[in-house]
Amino acid sequence: MGEMKTLGEPAWLSGEGPESQIVLSSRVRLARNLVGYPFAHKANPDELAQIFEVVRDAISKMDGLRKGQVVRIDRTTPLDRQYLLERHLISPDLANKNGPRGVVIGEGESLGLMINEEDHLRIQGMFSGFEPMKAWQLVNSLDDGLSASLEVAFSENWGYLTACPTNTGTGLRASVLIHLPALVLTKQISKVLRGITQVGLAVRGMFGEGTEVMGNFFQISNQTTLGLSERDTLDSLSRVTRQIIDHEKSASEVLLKSARLQVEDKVFRAFGILSHCRVISSHEVLSLISAVRFGRTIGILEGVDIRLLNRVMIETLPAHLQKGAGEPLDQVERDYRRAELVRGLLAK
Amino acid sequence: MGEMKTLGEPAWLSGEGPESQIVLSSRVRLARNLVGYPFAHKANPDELAQIFEVVRDAISKMDGLRKGQVVRIDRTTPLDRQYLLERHLISPDLANKNGPRGVVIGEGESLGLMINEEDHLRIQGMFSGFEPMKAWQLVNSLDDGLSASLEVAFSENWGYLTACPTNTGTGLRASVLIHLPALVLTKQISKVLRGITQVGLAVRGMFGEGTEVMGNFFQISNQTTLGLSERDTLDSLSRVTRQIIDHEKSASEVLLKSARLQVEDKVFRAFGILSHCRVISSHEVLSLISAVRFGRTIGILEGVDIRLLNRVMIETLPAHLQKGAGEPLDQVERDYRRAELVRGLLAK
Repeated sequence: MGEMKTLGEPAWLSGEGPESQIVLSSRVRLARNLVGYPFAHKANPDELAQIFEVVRDAISKMDGLRKGQVVRIDRTTPLDRQYLLERHLISPDLANKNGPRGVVIGEGESLGLMINEEDHLRIQGMFSGFEPMKAWQLVNSLDDGLSASLEVAFSENWGYLTACPTNTGTGLRASVLIHLPALVLTKQISKVLRGITQVGLAVRGMFGEGTEVMGNFFQISNQTTLGLSERDTLDSLSRVTRQIIDHEKSASEVLLKSARLQVEDKVFRAFGILSHCRVISSHEVLSLISAVRFGRTIGILEGVDIRLLNRVMIETLPAHLQKGAGEPLDQVERDYRRAELVRGLLAK
Repeated sequence: MGEMKTLGEPAWLSGEGPESQIVLSSRVRLARNLVGYPFAHKANPDELAQIFEVVRDAISKMDGLRKGQVVRIDRTTPLDRQYLLERHLISPDLANKNGPRGVVIGEGESLGLMINEEDHLRIQGMFSGFEPMKAWQLVNSLDDGLSASLEVAFSENWGYLTACPTNTGTGLRASVLIHLPALVLTKQISKVLRGITQVGLAVRGMFGEGTEVMGNFFQISNQTTLGLSERDTLDSLSRVTRQIIDHEKSASEVLLKSARLQVEDKVFRAFGILSHCRVISSHEVLSLISAVRFGRTIGILEGVDIRLLNRVMIETLPAHLQKGAGEPLDQVERDYRRAELVRGLLAK
């Protein structure tokens, strides 16, 4: 069981792209399965190994992931799995499974492919900012290539067949990771989240299903895959996201008018604590980074680079800290190193 | 009713003198009354006015307070009274009274004299650091001078006669303002304070009797004035203070050994908040300044000047802020100006 090399800075954290102050990233994934093999949860290790090799072989001939890093997840350490999880490259589901499964990581981590997660293939595209269409185009082009060399399970009636019926149809899940501090501060967030759910979208925490909301970051995604086209799905997500962005901006304006001083105080104190702390938890980092990011978004903290804030967010996560240190660290050591890292990054 | 001019920086806040990191200041006051007049609470306005003039006349011929600023407290604004209170130049008792009463303020505020407070005369001496003896010598020399030109009420049996029997005898109250964060953090403070009370000393808050303990600053003073000499009183206070200083130093060492990182974190965060806040209350300033001062005392924050911390403590108090601004400020404005002032001072 070898140690994975530390990855570079992911392109989807570059802080670029439209509305990138509010929308951290946009993500699209496609669920696909191969004809001639049982679904992954029914397949035996031999079959899983065959699927793994077939897919690996197919992508080795294609643009996009040809030079990708192939990781057999069952051969990684628990720390590496957590590391990949923190980078949104694998799902908690894949991290907890054994057997011949894995992930292929494209350049800059914009394109990724999980093999033998819930479905044989989970193609993922991620972009910085509000770019669901670009993310879709990226996964779609890989999907086209794969479909040309692999026989993908598809029914004229149902569309793409998937291990779980909730994905059948397009197999598409599109999501945005969105930062909504003003809606939280003005206590409008519950109403907004209720509205999102009512139009058939789902709201989750930063790391997807079953994860907690931290630092006012919400992941919004479609729930329906059956009976509507990919275009419809993306349009609907984009339309709702645009509305939420507008809500967040109005809430920011109201806050700045009614409580500018208190907002400034919150923002600058957060920056003061981050740049001076000697011990800090990931939770507190996310919560303070949220305040600093908000300050940047509304023009209170001009000098701070969004990309740097994104880096702080990911590099201070527990597995990232340990990969960075090159050794396992207990919680006390992590809280110490995290503080050191945050100070170092913010001093830039 | 004219406005008092803003006073300069008091010498007792210079941060100099022995143990000045732990002992902010040492203070001695003498209660004296004049023969031939009723005690202040029994005197009518004419008698009070006579006392005021007699005393004023006496000091105008003496070293020490000759060039002192004479303030008729009944002719000051409520803001000025609070201002004098915050500087420890008058007592809450004097601030709340009307009629011909006042205070004479010597150069650097080391020497002061309240007229017609509870007693006709309250001579006060204050020094930076652990200097009860010096403070005593200062008031004693003024007392000698006054006794030469005024007839002071004294009984061979009882000593100096005072309006309240708790001051009869020496009329002396000696106190130190001491900073005990390590004893508070290690939860030994109650035990220590109990010990202080058991040996006959009193513990009070920063502004004396009936005031709250803030920022881990305690005022320790003698309670007994009858049946022991001035020397005994000062020796006893000095001996106990020395023991408390030693306790505080041991507690600091224990803390640094057992929880250095947590202490550093507390100290640096306090500094980070003070140097970044946009709104702050006096209470929070005192509590954070306490942490920063502790960091300075134990060598974590080398670069910070104790005198500067003392300045922050006094200049951010409500009346000081308003005197500084040259206008009355409501609480919201004070919290804003206070934050601005703290940032400005700490940037030095």
